[in-house]
Amino acid sequence: MSAAVSGPRAVVLLSGGLDSSTVLAAALAAGRECFALTVQYGQRHSAEIAAAARIARALGVREHRCASVDLGQFGGSALTDLTIAVPESPSTEIPITYVPARNTVMLSLALAWAEVLDADEIHLGVNAVDYSGYPDCRPAFIAAFEAMANLATKRAVSGQPIRLITPLMHSSKADIIQLGQGLGVDYAMTVSCYQATDDGTACGRCDSCRLREAGFRQAGVPDPTRYGA
Amino acid sequence: MSAAVSGPRAVVLLSGGLDSSTVLAAALAAGRECFALTVQYGQRHSAEIAAAARIARALGVREHRCASVDLGQFGGSALTDLTIAVPESPSTEIPITYVPARNTVMLSLALAWAEVLDADEIHLGVNAVDYSGYPDCRPAFIAAFEAMANLATKRAVSGQPIRLITPLMHSSKADIIQLGQGLGVDYAMTVSCYQATDDGTACGRCDSCRLREAGFRQAGVPDPTRYGA
Repeated sequence: MSAAVSGPRAVVLLSGGLDSSTVLAAALAAGRECFALTVQYGQRHSAEIAAAARIARALGVREHRCASVDLGQFGGSALTDLTIAVPESPSTEIPITYVPARNTVMLSLALAWAEVLDADEIHLGVNAVDYSGYPDCRPAFIAAFEAMANLATKRAVSGQPIRLITPLMHSSKADIIQLGQGLGVDYAMTVSCYQATDDGTACGRCDSCRLREAGFRQAGVPDPTRYGA
Repeated sequence: MSAAVSGPRAVVLLSGGLDSSTVLAAALAAGRECFALTVQYGQRHSAEIAAAARIARALGVREHRCASVDLGQFGGSALTDLTIAVPESPSTEIPITYVPARNTVMLSLALAWAEVLDADEIHLGVNAVDYSGYPDCRPAFIAAFEAMANLATKRAVSGQPIRLITPLMHSSKADIIQLGQGLGVDYAMTVSCYQATDDGTACGRCDSCRLREAGFRQAGVPDPTRYGA
């Protein structure tokens, strides 16, 4: 769709969920030539990977790639270890759905592709408001990753910086949904549920479902999510 | 062999080459409980992965794991793209054997495992003296990664830092070989060549072979490397 775009190049981390789909739509609206990267890290909710492919196609990226890395082998998270149940009530600590170093790994892969593409930006949908208390979603982490990235690659020599763009960092879920609606994102295509079935049906009870459902309610936007029994 | 060790836990990045094998031997000698991680990132010299397994077994780690991630799909390096020749003369710029963001990706995977193991340290054999001009081998990069790592994980909340240990950073290749010899490393097991054959025979001409060969010569240690025709 936007094959004619020749603005600054950006790698966009696209999980197939609500937040990253909105980030992609915003990057395209800002004239970026977008390269979407989906990381299959061993997550149980692999329906989001099919969702990412649908969204990339619908929004019109220059290229969409999937990279696989088996974080599940290290364990330690309900999202990658099928023997650990996904919690269905809120936690006051870092929840068991946190995947150790996941955002660091995903950003590293985005950095690898960005370096080859000579892209100036990496966009991602981290959010420090309506999120689940994960350490790797906070502004201090993003700033530290950006500083590291600018020492890690050829950009350290060229002096031209690469930037991490996190347009949703300080938005509520309702704000994000309103932004995406204005940009024409079809949220029916997205999958947020941590234990979605293969066809993308959501449980309606996990942390991610609860945040999403409340977001639609607060935004006054009809929730297109297919919830299971 | 060192199954009785119960000192601080360390994840050691083990490529199967000379440097990382020396780092592993040093970490074991320092009483660390070592978890060796080898990353198959699409490198053409996969003989080093078999070498890593041999070394891990010979030196006696608590556990050795391989993680696969396809950096080759992004291209941009002679080490992952078989259509780009490995250069056989020195370069004054960042050489084409540089793999975009490779050390960032490998450290991210080490961080993921370290977090699950609750390890206090990640050891790696980067070196800023006899190396190939890669940006991700310099002290400033390592310091920036460590700072980022301490914001990325649960350690950001617990306040107990994770440290990156780079014992070879300021050593010459000859120094490294002398250190390893004193620690009993059998360098015949290691593979450094960028285009080693499947049985580990070295070309003797690439950057990595030249640095290694000069190191043995300067150290006054017989070079056990098997060079091809």
